[in-house]
Amino acid sequence: MTVTLDERLDAYRTAAAAEMARYVAGLEPRRHLYEPLRAFTLREGKGLRPALCLATCEAFGGTVEDAVHVAAAIELLHAAFLIHDDIEDGSEKRRGRSAMHVEYGVPIALNAGDALATLCLRPLLDGVDRIGSRMTRAVVAEFQCTMERTVEGQAVELGWRVDDTLDLSPIDYLDMVLRKTCAYTTILPLRTGALIGSWGGADLGAIARFGFALGAAFQIQDDVLDVVSDQALYAKDLYGDVREGKRTLMLIHLLEYAAPADRAFVEEFVASSRRRDEEHQVQRVVALMREYGSIDFATDYAARIADTARVAFDDAFGGCADSPALSFLRALVPFMIRRRS
Amino acid sequence: MTVTLDERLDAYRTAAAAEMARYVAGLEPRRHLYEPLRAFTLREGKGLRPALCLATCEAFGGTVEDAVHVAAAIELLHAAFLIHDDIEDGSEKRRGRSAMHVEYGVPIALNAGDALATLCLRPLLDGVDRIGSRMTRAVVAEFQCTMERTVEGQAVELGWRVDDTLDLSPIDYLDMVLRKTCAYTTILPLRTGALIGSWGGADLGAIARFGFALGAAFQIQDDVLDVVSDQALYAKDLYGDVREGKRTLMLIHLLEYAAPADRAFVEEFVASSRRRDEEHQVQRVVALMREYGSIDFATDYAARIADTARVAFDDAFGGCADSPALSFLRALVPFMIRRRS
Repeated sequence: MTVTLDERLDAYRTAAAAEMARYVAGLEPRRHLYEPLRAFTLREGKGLRPALCLATCEAFGGTVEDAVHVAAAIELLHAAFLIHDDIEDGSEKRRGRSAMHVEYGVPIALNAGDALATLCLRPLLDGVDRIGSRMTRAVVAEFQCTMERTVEGQAVELGWRVDDTLDLSPIDYLDMVLRKTCAYTTILPLRTGALIGSWGGADLGAIARFGFALGAAFQIQDDVLDVVSDQALYAKDLYGDVREGKRTLMLIHLLEYAAPADRAFVEEFVASSRRRDEEHQVQRVVALMREYGSIDFATDYAARIADTARVAFDDAFGGCADSPALSFLRALVPFMIRRRS
Repeated sequence: MTVTLDERLDAYRTAAAAEMARYVAGLEPRRHLYEPLRAFTLREGKGLRPALCLATCEAFGGTVEDAVHVAAAIELLHAAFLIHDDIEDGSEKRRGRSAMHVEYGVPIALNAGDALATLCLRPLLDGVDRIGSRMTRAVVAEFQCTMERTVEGQAVELGWRVDDTLDLSPIDYLDMVLRKTCAYTTILPLRTGALIGSWGGADLGAIARFGFALGAAFQIQDDVLDVVSDQALYAKDLYGDVREGKRTLMLIHLLEYAAPADRAFVEEFVASSRRRDEEHQVQRVVALMREYGSIDFATDYAARIADTARVAFDDAFGGCADSPALSFLRALVPFMIRRRS
């Protein structure tokens, strides 16, 4: 019987979710804090981050049990970022429901995000019984660096919007994505999983290079899904990125290749992207992205980065014996650019 | 030559500020993140929190050098809370200037607050070279508990506003203040200072009891200053608490003792406290607080809590030899309720 990638992803997600639930259940005040947090963390995400951590731990010789507290901490941190990002971006939907600040108002949601950003460290501190104080110190240091890189990446991206920055290249985009997305989405889970599984022996630099390529492929596909999905099957706001004026590879490509009149329209639209009522303008930007090949450009870009990830994978995991966990990790590379949600 | 309380407060503040500056200087991106943070953390606060930490460390036999990284971490955490609180409360002034979200917009300010809440742990991790890993672990655990209590207290207070809760007693107020204010303002600095100064030997329970009384006296006086200060000398919005409908001891007293017609007016005002334009209504609430003795009630309450703090001080610091640091801490008790800013 072959275990599919989806089944394995599911199993890792379930293990991390059970651990995570311990940290937001039964505490006071329930109203206005822990109950909204419990409900939010129960909304099912893809579970990619805990899976990366747990599979990497296994691939390097550890067990799910060794790293499940770290996987839970990563999911808590992810939820914290989602809640604050949605406030910062004015997003209205998240995981198929209302964003938290839409449901509870900005003050309660902001504070709940603060709570998660703190609570995510609690499993790490408790984990000293599981992996000892030396390894715990190394894991906490990984979280610390990651959290710093993430807010830096977020500041860069918010800054582009505030300053109406338009002259961006794919390199600027990748640099921002490295900090804002890859740091906590792929590099942190991979590095902490490898640290624990190998008991400190793994080459974390090689792991980080793989994580960057994997995370960049993930993020570009995420951006593409925003404009090619069917809203009925999409858990976020369709065209949400376009509405926000988000500097995706597609927008960067469009601004470079559009004819002057089209470019002028897009520039004007991006500068005024806080006016959300102009739905036909949003549609026109998406149509232009299609017309000028910007979506194809991003899709190709993701495919080439996935190729890089394949090479980096061999470098990072070359010393690992074959295992179901290793096969799962290898299969995640094409999955990143194939996924439809 | 006698060193005054203000001079000593100043010296502690300066030591912590120099240490703190190391953690927000010279990093990228400056624009939209580290530069706003540097400017914000340079705005001079009272410096009460680092002084409590450093003086307590000295009183128990340690040096300023032993705990200055912790004092800096506490100030960074405090700044993080201020930035997010001002967004949640819609406050416009902070430390004599615009609140950060007024100056930079909510997204940049929210993210900058997240950055500080993360950065505050960095000096603690670096401090392992200074105080070793066992003591560092204990200090990190103190921060973790404190941050959890603070967001819980904030949730309780925000909840009162969201739910238009009016039937509150002074006990409800004290319970909220214990978590929202005392945990990080007094208890954390005192406990971490005592931990480090005594090398783990101090009675942290007694220290926490003193911290609660000291912090409650501080907060009640803070609330009183909101309605009795001269705006020219006040670094925050005068009557800001009244405008927000904040459940202070004064409001709780007023709701209990006002004649039915006055009470109905106050209830209506509090329920509609998001309408900020009605300046004459704000003035009337303050006038009623004066008329019904609510301000005197709060002032008396603070004085009685300061008496409790005096007793708790002897219990907490009874084993310490006389020192300038100990005298400073003793003098802080009357200072809390005497201060005018």
